Amino acid sequence: MPTQRDNQSGRTAILLIHCPDRRGLVSAITNFISRNDGNIVYLDQHVDAQKKVFFMRIEWELEGFAIAPERIADELKREVADPFQMNWALHFSDEVQRMALFVSRLPHCLYDILARWQSGEWRVEVPLIISNHEDLRPVAERFGIPYYCLPITPDNKPEQEARQLELLREHDIDFVVLARYMQILSPSFVEQYPERIINIHHSFLPAFAGAKPYHAAHARGVKIIGATSHYVTAELDAGPIIAQDVTAVTHRDSVEDLVRKGRDLEKLVLARAIWTHLQRKVLCYDNRTVIFD
Amino acid sequence: MPTQRDNQSGRTAILLIHCPDRRGLVSAITNFISRNDGNIVYLDQHVDAQKKVFFMRIEWELEGFAIAPERIADELKREVADPFQMNWALHFSDEVQRMALFVSRLPHCLYDILARWQSGEWRVEVPLIISNHEDLRPVAERFGIPYYCLPITPDNKPEQEARQLELLREHDIDFVVLARYMQILSPSFVEQYPERIINIHHSFLPAFAGAKPYHAAHARGVKIIGATSHYVTAELDAGPIIAQDVTAVTHRDSVEDLVRKGRDLEKLVLARAIWTHLQRKVLCYDNRTVIFD
Amino acid sequence: MPTQRDNQSGRTAILLIHCPDRRGLVSAITNFISRNDGNIVYLDQHVDAQKKVFFMRIEWELEGFAIAPERIADELKREVADPFQMNWALHFSDEVQRMALFVSRLPHCLYDILARWQSGEWRVEVPLIISNHEDLRPVAERFGIPYYCLPITPDNKPEQEARQLELLREHDIDFVVLARYMQILSPSFVEQYPERIINIHHSFLPAFAGAKPYHAAHARGVKIIGATSHYVTAELDAGPIIAQDVTAVTHRDSVEDLVRKGRDLEKLVLARAIWTHLQRKVLCYDNRTVIFD
Amino acid sequence: MPTQRDNQSGRTAILLIHCPDRRGLVSAITNFISRNDGNIVYLDQHVDAQKKVFFMRIEWELEGFAIAPERIADELKREVADPFQMNWALHFSDEVQRMALFVSRLPHCLYDILARWQSGEWRVEVPLIISNHEDLRPVAERFGIPYYCLPITPDNKPEQEARQLELLREHDIDFVVLARYMQILSPSFVEQYPERIINIHHSFLPAFAGAKPYHAAHARGVKIIGATSHYVTAELDAGPIIAQDVTAVTHRDSVEDLVRKGRDLEKLVLARAIWTHLQRKVLCYDNRTVIFD
Repeated sequence: MPTQRDNQSGRTAILLIHCPDRRGLVSAITNFISRNDGNIVYLDQHVDAQKKVFFMRIEWELEGFAIAPERIADELKREVADPFQMNWALHFSDEVQRMALFVSRLPHCLYDILARWQSGEWRVEVPLIISNHEDLRPVAERFGIPYYCLPITPDNKPEQEARQLELLREHDIDFVVLARYMQILSPSFVEQYPERIINIHHSFLPAFAGAKPYHAAHARGVKIIGATSHYVTAELDAGPIIAQDVTAVTHRDSVEDLVRKGRDLEKLVLARAIWTHLQRKVLCYDNRTVIFD
Repeated sequence: MPTQRDNQSGRTAILLIHCPDRRGLVSAITNFISRNDGNIVYLDQHVDAQKKVFFMRIEWELEGFAIAPERIADELKREVADPFQMNWALHFSDEVQRMALFVSRLPHCLYDILARWQSGEWRVEVPLIISNHEDLRPVAERFGIPYYCLPITPDNKPEQEARQLELLREHDIDFVVLARYMQILSPSFVEQYPERIINIHHSFLPAFAGAKPYHAAHARGVKIIGATSHYVTAELDAGPIIAQDVTAVTHRDSVEDLVRKGRDLEKLVLARAIWTHLQRKVLCYDNRTVIFD
Repeated sequence: MPTQRDNQSGRTAILLIHCPDRRGLVSAITNFISRNDGNIVYLDQHVDAQKKVFFMRIEWELEGFAIAPERIADELKREVADPFQMNWALHFSDEVQRMALFVSRLPHCLYDILARWQSGEWRVEVPLIISNHEDLRPVAERFGIPYYCLPITPDNKPEQEARQLELLREHDIDFVVLARYMQILSPSFVEQYPERIINIHHSFLPAFAGAKPYHAAHARGVKIIGATSHYVTAELDAGPIIAQDVTAVTHRDSVEDLVRKGRDLEKLVLARAIWTHLQRKVLCYDNRTVIFD
Repeated sequence: MPTQRDNQSGRTAILLIHCPDRRGLVSAITNFISRNDGNIVYLDQHVDAQKKVFFMRIEWELEGFAIAPERIADELKREVADPFQMNWALHFSDEVQRMALFVSRLPHCLYDILARWQSGEWRVEVPLIISNHEDLRPVAERFGIPYYCLPITPDNKPEQEARQLELLREHDIDFVVLARYMQILSPSFVEQYPERIINIHHSFLPAFAGAKPYHAAHARGVKIIGATSHYVTAELDAGPIIAQDVTAVTHRDSVEDLVRKGRDLEKLVLARAIWTHLQRKVLCYDNRTVIFD
């Protein structure tokens, strides 16, 4: 009869930890895995020397591991996590996350995400797209994804956000991507998905936060423009930064040129942030991120 | 007897222009040069379509040019510049500009500039170094350049700036480079050298203007840091940007690491700005720069 | 009655030139435009000082221009182009070029191009997609573009290429994009479309030309990988380079990681090359390109 | 009486390891440190999944560590290194390495290195400079470093290399930096300093290996140039790459412009490689490098 240990081929457990730094942390964690015959395939750790905080991402093969997957969390908690006061999360490599997309009128990030999803570049499901405009419905239809248009006005925002949250729950959404969604989510919405709403802002934050960053960058005469992907928090454009990138511009570039060059940055930076999130390679602490390689 | 036309081998005239955009501008300028037998070796122009302003840098060989160098300005003014209401400046390629360096305690930009000067990478003279500290006197001595230490306190700032300006005049200085000079120049100083004081700021402006930008960048958790070289204006860190560059950082980088990585950016970006200025390839307009290639 | 001069609003003429460098070239060209009341909106020129060759791209408004569009070529030829022995091409800004896409199995470049086309980011028509595999037919169908599958074997290559050329002629194709098409075009095919076939190679050429560049890059242990877009010539991966870009990699990156990171580079670099080509901003000379800004 | 454990404040031990990958490796190493009361301040590991090789850099505080520094190597060998068949090296953070510089005529890398050394940016000693030309003697004198000029001809190369090696031994040199030294070291020289001779090559290797890379890059019409720092091996320009960087160029750039832009790349890339080497953050394997962050 095949045992639990036989059918885990290729499957891994992923453990994310942050806690006060103490001697013996790394060996306590690695011992737990080793003495249960786990083979570590990834280990990255970071110590914030100033704040004395320890961060780790460790991944090991479930094949041959002495503890059944469904019991790992309990044993880990008792033997390691509680004694060291760890904040921790355990994931398995074969979990498929469910991502909701919020869009408005600009298609470039949406196309880029759907192409990656459809071609299998990412292991993710896209159960729905939510928009405040009808413009991108044809794109959603082209990829066969349900599209909900919920126009937002100052008057209806609370009801529409309630409807959005209901849709997210109905579709069992793990995280939300704002793919150039041009509405500000209310704090009460944001707190439902802490560190689970990813935004792309079209500037090199903290420069040019808020509206019309390309106009502002042009007016200031910068020689480089950027894009920033971050987790959404209650404060606008001020959440923990996941990824940033930049590109050179010159005096020849009009605002329209910045918009054009910026589009490519936006889609790449957002894609990089989503990929990092999907890989369980982000930890947030103190409004900053630890991004494991 | 050799004439003026014979001994100009390799020498060029450089004309910088900005003026309201009008039909016929380019042909008026190029005709002036062509009909006097000038050979154009460089032409770059830019039209700000929104503000209807025309910018040009044009360079031609003096060898064989029908107008003697000392008379070019007059003829140009009469025939082209005045009719088209041009703001213009005429330079000659063999002029050697005189650059004053202002420093405080950090040596990296100073060393980089002096090495470029000493090895002939730049065509420039460095008649003096001014500092508010004694720290870098040995570096100045190593390169044989007079070093004036003028410590600044809130009380003596006006007198010391007067002394600095006197030194600049005595040494016939064309432009000033603040090579990590940690004092803010007063508006009355700045207005003596409009578009002729180059600063290096250790952030990607407009992000993190003012003091301690690396601390601020670390606290914000950015994934990229930058450096910005700009002309100094009365408003702190807000003058026309000449050059910017960036480098990637991670959560592993402490403030000290940002300082270390930033040093290399600062010296490169400042050097690039100085080189562009020396090549007469910068025009300022509307607190922005046109940088000719 | 409205005349020809009235209905050219926003339309421009674009002239590309290369020829032996001579005094008076710029003024001859700009005079031709000025004296016919043309307003120059773009001028970029380059002189290869070593080879004494002059290059220019100049663009002027047709509105108000004294010569009717259909007569410009003749007058230009007589008055300027022939006297200066120019190689030249005249285009109009409202021409819509027709681009054929060649693909194999990898979808990322195809998706990226079709998204840009469909969202109006580029002014171009895509009359057909040709492939040697069936894999990407669903993508073509999703965007409503005819898809021709012409499998290539060593035996049938000449016939299939003949069929491809026939399709290009039938569809009145202006230029061809090899969007990760994994077949080498024969020299006789290439010579039908000189400087009109754009390829993307997944390395920083001339490093790692030929097959499996990511494997080769991994084996060599490089710290940066690249992608190169170039015009196809008879010699493999050796044509004039239009665009290149790079991204950092580390020892952690497996060949699969290089492939993943490279995909984003490939699609961006290819898109940049196509955009530059569409803007009529490329001139080839001596197996190199002049790329106007 | 103060014990060994009292006077190690701030001092760390650095252990570099590579060996066949096996279960329990990380916990064996971290246990060794933990049970001797060591506080790990840095841990970075890498597994080459394809070749099944394990790499680690681990650093811990000597203050409070139960084993005296001079006995760590022995105990480590017996308890961990031998059982796991490790290739390993143990260093202490307060060791100051001794670096010899080889130069020819170009000063930019030499100036950059000496400025970093002199300003304390690097913890290193520079006991001597060796050159095959007299040109840079004044720079050496300016910084007070002994300069040995050993001109190389085809005839005297063996004797001069013997003299160079003698100088390196006399000065107790740990590693050699070829700071644009324009001679090829013979294999017999190279094998004396395996993974301890750092070269800077002025191209993006493997493109343009050998002589005159900027000329070759210009002729090929690349849009990006690079510089590569690597350990020297018997095969020219083919050793393990430590650092690479690139910069954009255009058709406007002559060979001289590439040389100018390249100088800045060369000095930065070489400095980055030296710094990484000084930090004991490089492991070589299979002609590739593992660079710890």
